[in-house]
Amino acid sequence: MTIAKKIEGFIENSSWIRKMFEEGARLRQQHGADNVFDFSLGNPNLPPPAQFDKILEETLAAVGDRGHGYMPNTGYPQVRDAIAGFLQAEQNVAITGDEIIMTCGAAGALNIVLKAILDPEDEVITPAPYFVEYNFYANNHGGTLKAVPTKDDFALDIDSLENAISDKTKAVIINSPNNPTGKVYSREELVKLGGLLLAKSQETGHTIYLISDEPYRKIVFDDIIVPSIFDCYQETILCTSYSKDISIPGERIGFVAINPMAAYKKELQAGIALANRILGFVNAPALMQRVVAQMQGDSVDIDQYRKKRDLLCDGLAGCGYEFIKPSGAFYLFPKAPVADDVAFVRALQDELILVVPGSGFGGPGHFRIAFCVTDDTIKNAMPGFRRTLDKFR
Amino acid sequence: MTIAKKIEGFIENSSWIRKMFEEGARLRQQHGADNVFDFSLGNPNLPPPAQFDKILEETLAAVGDRGHGYMPNTGYPQVRDAIAGFLQAEQNVAITGDEIIMTCGAAGALNIVLKAILDPEDEVITPAPYFVEYNFYANNHGGTLKAVPTKDDFALDIDSLENAISDKTKAVIINSPNNPTGKVYSREELVKLGGLLLAKSQETGHTIYLISDEPYRKIVFDDIIVPSIFDCYQETILCTSYSKDISIPGERIGFVAINPMAAYKKELQAGIALANRILGFVNAPALMQRVVAQMQGDSVDIDQYRKKRDLLCDGLAGCGYEFIKPSGAFYLFPKAPVADDVAFVRALQDELILVVPGSGFGGPGHFRIAFCVTDDTIKNAMPGFRRTLDKFR
Repeated sequence: MTIAKKIEGFIENSSWIRKMFEEGARLRQQHGADNVFDFSLGNPNLPPPAQFDKILEETLAAVGDRGHGYMPNTGYPQVRDAIAGFLQAEQNVAITGDEIIMTCGAAGALNIVLKAILDPEDEVITPAPYFVEYNFYANNHGGTLKAVPTKDDFALDIDSLENAISDKTKAVIINSPNNPTGKVYSREELVKLGGLLLAKSQETGHTIYLISDEPYRKIVFDDIIVPSIFDCYQETILCTSYSKDISIPGERIGFVAINPMAAYKKELQAGIALANRILGFVNAPALMQRVVAQMQGDSVDIDQYRKKRDLLCDGLAGCGYEFIKPSGAFYLFPKAPVADDVAFVRALQDELILVVPGSGFGGPGHFRIAFCVTDDTIKNAMPGFRRTLDKFR
Repeated sequence: MTIAKKIEGFIENSSWIRKMFEEGARLRQQHGADNVFDFSLGNPNLPPPAQFDKILEETLAAVGDRGHGYMPNTGYPQVRDAIAGFLQAEQNVAITGDEIIMTCGAAGALNIVLKAILDPEDEVITPAPYFVEYNFYANNHGGTLKAVPTKDDFALDIDSLENAISDKTKAVIINSPNNPTGKVYSREELVKLGGLLLAKSQETGHTIYLISDEPYRKIVFDDIIVPSIFDCYQETILCTSYSKDISIPGERIGFVAINPMAAYKKELQAGIALANRILGFVNAPALMQRVVAQMQGDSVDIDQYRKKRDLLCDGLAGCGYEFIKPSGAFYLFPKAPVADDVAFVRALQDELILVVPGSGFGGPGHFRIAFCVTDDTIKNAMPGFRRTLDKFR
């Protein structure tokens, strides 16, 4: 063996996804990127809010050349205080900067939280369809991800979750607004989930944490508000980033917020801070910490994503596609007209349309369309979407 | 258990180090930060090179608001090409951008490399004294760190290394210039080490990688040049950052460079790129990637560190301390006058001098002085250094 067996296996198993990406790259090269309709990536196409550049420049001017050194592993105290202050107002929670840990994005946040809580062979449960990287994140720290089905409208299936929880369950990860479905869980669902986790924690004699992965919290439509998880259950840990709401995913900036009511919040804080250090993150990027502290509550123009959603949904409905209209995020997860979603996705490629098979999200028989693209991409892809569906009917 | 047992143990075991840091914080609060001589942290005190701010501003202006999105997990191709071009000239190695992976600092680099290569129970060998975080980095990915003594002058002890290598050995990590000793390994030593690893790889039938952790490469004194590892051994992986040479450790930017002669360089590249993604780094911070691409070969004013080293060495020699004069980095690792280095470090605290016990680096009976501080800190601490040594003689 030249590299780790596990990593070799991961590379091999992901080879069909890679092949599809390679095929996409080949199509772009052959036909020109402008003639390929690429809905495969969750890379926000809207620019950051107008004030971003100005805040970045002002921050640079203010900190001078001394603003790039080490700080505590948890981040600058004043940045953590600013975020806590915003969360207090947004979510009516008595949180302080002590419960905030600045991270390298939500992916960094999830990894340090899982490292801090998982013992070998612990299980982490998530409702499917789900962001498939969760499998790796749990595995990185000795755990196993267990996907549990949702209802037909992607709502939480509390009974399925109850059946899945065992003595090995250390955490449940939810992601609302959801990637890949755009589902936003209602407060009623979250309260039920909280009740279930409380009962199961008491039954099994150990804490089951609820990890809420919320990078799309601000990207919601039709006056929907994403409920706060903090008062639905005491043992909650929020993980999020500024990647999607202010369109800076390449900068790797986000945070963890521990429920101030969590029974062992000090141990959690110390464990997550240590994990941030020893996994090699050390700290979240310094300059961007200072920038996001000044952009609490800011977001890109969400109505543009709403318009894209409507354009896409109206178009696909007109073609005859079946789907649940997303309430948030920038993904649509329609049914494929055949069980073999990979075959259908390949057929879309013949029309130069790139999407991701639902199998890649634990949701076979579906496919994911990321609509963080230009309106023209959506409009111009529609004939191809129609012809492909017609072929399969 | 509320958090992972392993993490609880780590927190508990590091409690005496934490107590010392807390004591330091208490001293600063009680006596005023200016009256405490803090030599405990490797946080560069020199500002970044003068051109850094200008390059940062120009980069911001050039990329506009679209320069903050996702890019390949390995980093921007043009940034990787720029670094490869510099390494070609600096180290006379036929490396290309394909062998470079941009990372969140050297700590991120080391973690993704170890994740990519370590199978459960693999061992990683490092010469002691060493950067103690290596223990965590190996452990994070199922491995174990094995520290091997160096010679009295901290030079590599090839015989000890040979005796330590077993069937389980997957890698050797070296760190030159060294933290905590400032030692720079000679080309002769590295060639011998390469020969040993080649022979042992053949003997054991599996590749033993040489991981070279080089964040202090540019911080060397007395016309010393740090030899390139690439032509000393084929299976080498360089991990480094811009934290120390351009004084931006808080920004988390560095890279991995795989030896273009490595037998399985494609597998290594794919494995390290995957590890960067799934450990949650995703990619190195976007803006800083573009900035460092334009600062290849740049560094802070190294002569200022040389002056600090001389000021410190002359002062301590005058007091009667014994030490090996460092050739690089900004650390001095003197002998404590008693075996119990923790006791000696506590005695220095009575003089408001903060240093780190050698035990924290696998080098008991010594202590580490980080001299990336003002000249006045060094000068004004000298009477306290003298009085403390006198107490113990």
